[in-house]
Amino acid sequence: MLQVITPEEVLNLIKEEFKTIEGSSENISIEQCVGRILAADITASEYVPDFDRSLVDGYALRAKDTFGCSDSIPAVLKIDGEVLMGKPADFTVSADSCGIIPTGGAVPEGADAVQMLEYAEEYGDGTVGIMKPAAPGAHMIFRGDDVFPGKTVLHKGRVLQAMDIGALAAMGITKIPVRPLLRIGIISTGDEIIPYQEKPMPGQIRDVNTALLHSAVSSPCTLVKEYGIVRDQEEILLSAVRSAMAENDLILISGGSSAGEKDATAKVIDTLGELLVHGIAMKPGKPTIIGKADETVLFGLPGHPVAAFFVTQLFVLPLIDRLCGCSSQYKESIPAELTENISANDGRAQYLAVRLGTEEQKMLVTPIRTKSGLISSLAEADGYISISRDCEGMAAGTTVNVFLFR
Amino acid sequence: MLQVITPEEVLNLIKEEFKTIEGSSENISIEQCVGRILAADITASEYVPDFDRSLVDGYALRAKDTFGCSDSIPAVLKIDGEVLMGKPADFTVSADSCGIIPTGGAVPEGADAVQMLEYAEEYGDGTVGIMKPAAPGAHMIFRGDDVFPGKTVLHKGRVLQAMDIGALAAMGITKIPVRPLLRIGIISTGDEIIPYQEKPMPGQIRDVNTALLHSAVSSPCTLVKEYGIVRDQEEILLSAVRSAMAENDLILISGGSSAGEKDATAKVIDTLGELLVHGIAMKPGKPTIIGKADETVLFGLPGHPVAAFFVTQLFVLPLIDRLCGCSSQYKESIPAELTENISANDGRAQYLAVRLGTEEQKMLVTPIRTKSGLISSLAEADGYISISRDCEGMAAGTTVNVFLFR
Repeated sequence: MLQVITPEEVLNLIKEEFKTIEGSSENISIEQCVGRILAADITASEYVPDFDRSLVDGYALRAKDTFGCSDSIPAVLKIDGEVLMGKPADFTVSADSCGIIPTGGAVPEGADAVQMLEYAEEYGDGTVGIMKPAAPGAHMIFRGDDVFPGKTVLHKGRVLQAMDIGALAAMGITKIPVRPLLRIGIISTGDEIIPYQEKPMPGQIRDVNTALLHSAVSSPCTLVKEYGIVRDQEEILLSAVRSAMAENDLILISGGSSAGEKDATAKVIDTLGELLVHGIAMKPGKPTIIGKADETVLFGLPGHPVAAFFVTQLFVLPLIDRLCGCSSQYKESIPAELTENISANDGRAQYLAVRLGTEEQKMLVTPIRTKSGLISSLAEADGYISISRDCEGMAAGTTVNVFLFR
Repeated sequence: MLQVITPEEVLNLIKEEFKTIEGSSENISIEQCVGRILAADITASEYVPDFDRSLVDGYALRAKDTFGCSDSIPAVLKIDGEVLMGKPADFTVSADSCGIIPTGGAVPEGADAVQMLEYAEEYGDGTVGIMKPAAPGAHMIFRGDDVFPGKTVLHKGRVLQAMDIGALAAMGITKIPVRPLLRIGIISTGDEIIPYQEKPMPGQIRDVNTALLHSAVSSPCTLVKEYGIVRDQEEILLSAVRSAMAENDLILISGGSSAGEKDATAKVIDTLGELLVHGIAMKPGKPTIIGKADETVLFGLPGHPVAAFFVTQLFVLPLIDRLCGCSSQYKESIPAELTENISANDGRAQYLAVRLGTEEQKMLVTPIRTKSGLISSLAEADGYISISRDCEGMAAGTTVNVFLFR
């Protein structure tokens, strides 16, 4: 008999029992890779930029030729040429000479600094007066300043974002190795459950969890398949889970709410493999089950949609990160000040949906209070707060950590 | 001649000058609508749940029959039947009788409360002793408690999220009216720019902005099309922008970095329509241009990728929200404590990429310091902070607002 464990113990168990699902990485194009997870470090093989570049419109010159110059005693330099955008300079800069250069232009050989237009005056005779000294390296970016061969720019396990796509384009990397998609199957169980498209008869309710869980776990890293509603009998569920196992890395089984049904999921997991968690000391979400069978992770969620949603946020998404090999830390929380008192709870960790607001530089958080678990109440929530099992309530003004819904 | 304006003025101008792009809403299925924007309020036409439901496993009964009962003097009730999941009760509850009911079961007519199994003992003769009084309504959820006909559950303009999908499924709403996709065209200009797939010759650099901007503005609400690299000549750019206007609601033109080129974008916008903003007093990102021509918004971004990325975060994404009719507020910021001093700036609003961290319940923020605008430096950033033009620097320990990159 497995004991009910705490939410912290569940997160530790996820780290210890599960690791990245093996599988060949895919090589995909830059255009497809936002939100995917890097399967290998990205190391540069080139210099970016590949030449010394000017950061301003001005004159490429030798810094030492400008030392000591001023408005009243300009350094007079011969103009040896002009750099065109996208071309190498067709001249070199030597003592007391310089070249006209645009922002982004290639600094000609011989020059080691650029002075801005604002501090120069052309005399019309092929010379220019520089009115302010330039330090060596002034207004330039050097070859390889951004990226150089051997520099690891992005690390394995990173979830690729727009700015990373920019770095990849800058390096000219056209095929990106990413982790394969995590295949997730979704099964709803319950004799009272009907497809949401149908009209309930007395005593029946629509299946909310299939659509809810599908949306919640969909991401560029996952491939989600629905297996519909399975009747609340062990044999039927066993056969449904067994066939879903062949096609998935993770199966989410959201139970109906009757006692017998919760047992059915646990028995099926026990029959097919190993039961690791059977019950989490939390509210909402106690009837949560985690197990594994062959290469597939089996996850039983509460039938109640709000409870299932919290369990997904708290455990399923971190589990997916783990299985996908995502190195990102779990979402940072936002400290905010409670606007209301929260009363004591009953010895279980408790999770409350909340709304965030700001007042000047202060973040405020207000719990959404409704009758137990109305799905429509979540529509106005931004995230949730957790109240530990030992806490006997919190006063307005207390700072708590708010976790945004992902 | 348009004046350089402040970032706050630009955000106000976006609100005043632009409104939701007209267009017919699409009706799509629940499965497709995460991240889309609701085109109309969603109002329920049914009760959810459609019957009174038990929240526990126990006995459905009349509350007043239990008043005054206790462990030593149980209320003895006749068991009139058992409710099965998914079926209406085939019996009614009358005085001093009750029915066995599972969690989620339909409360039989005549009953007005449910008492939990834990406070009951069956005597084996068709009766049960209830050991604890139940208040009317105890352990039940009533018909329509979650949703009732006429209740507006989701509001027009909301960006649909997983929990909303749950509410839509619960109500059996199968076609969701959402705003049409916003069509965005992307043009890169610059004589030194080559497609990122090619190898740069001396003086050339790869086009980073097309891929970067494409990734940054891609969302379930947008349809992005690339128009490649356009040479830095007014006539050529004019013709490219004109043909892109026929296919897009918004065109992003990221300029090369030379002075002549910035002018080309402004001249083209001026020729085709109206120039609204020409220069924003900020760092990075000064050479930013906003205009409109016919029904299309034209947005000129700096050629420098890091500057273009900041301008996108600060202005393009809020503009897209505006054009899409998204009612969400701009992302809340996270107050955090500076770990380092930041020196004064130069009279322009300044934006710094930062890394977030936590220490106990305190959020910490560290600026990423690099040579001007290296795209690889953004790879480790979580978001940015802004420093107002009047600020002469901030000391470590100051609380600042951190905006996460979207």
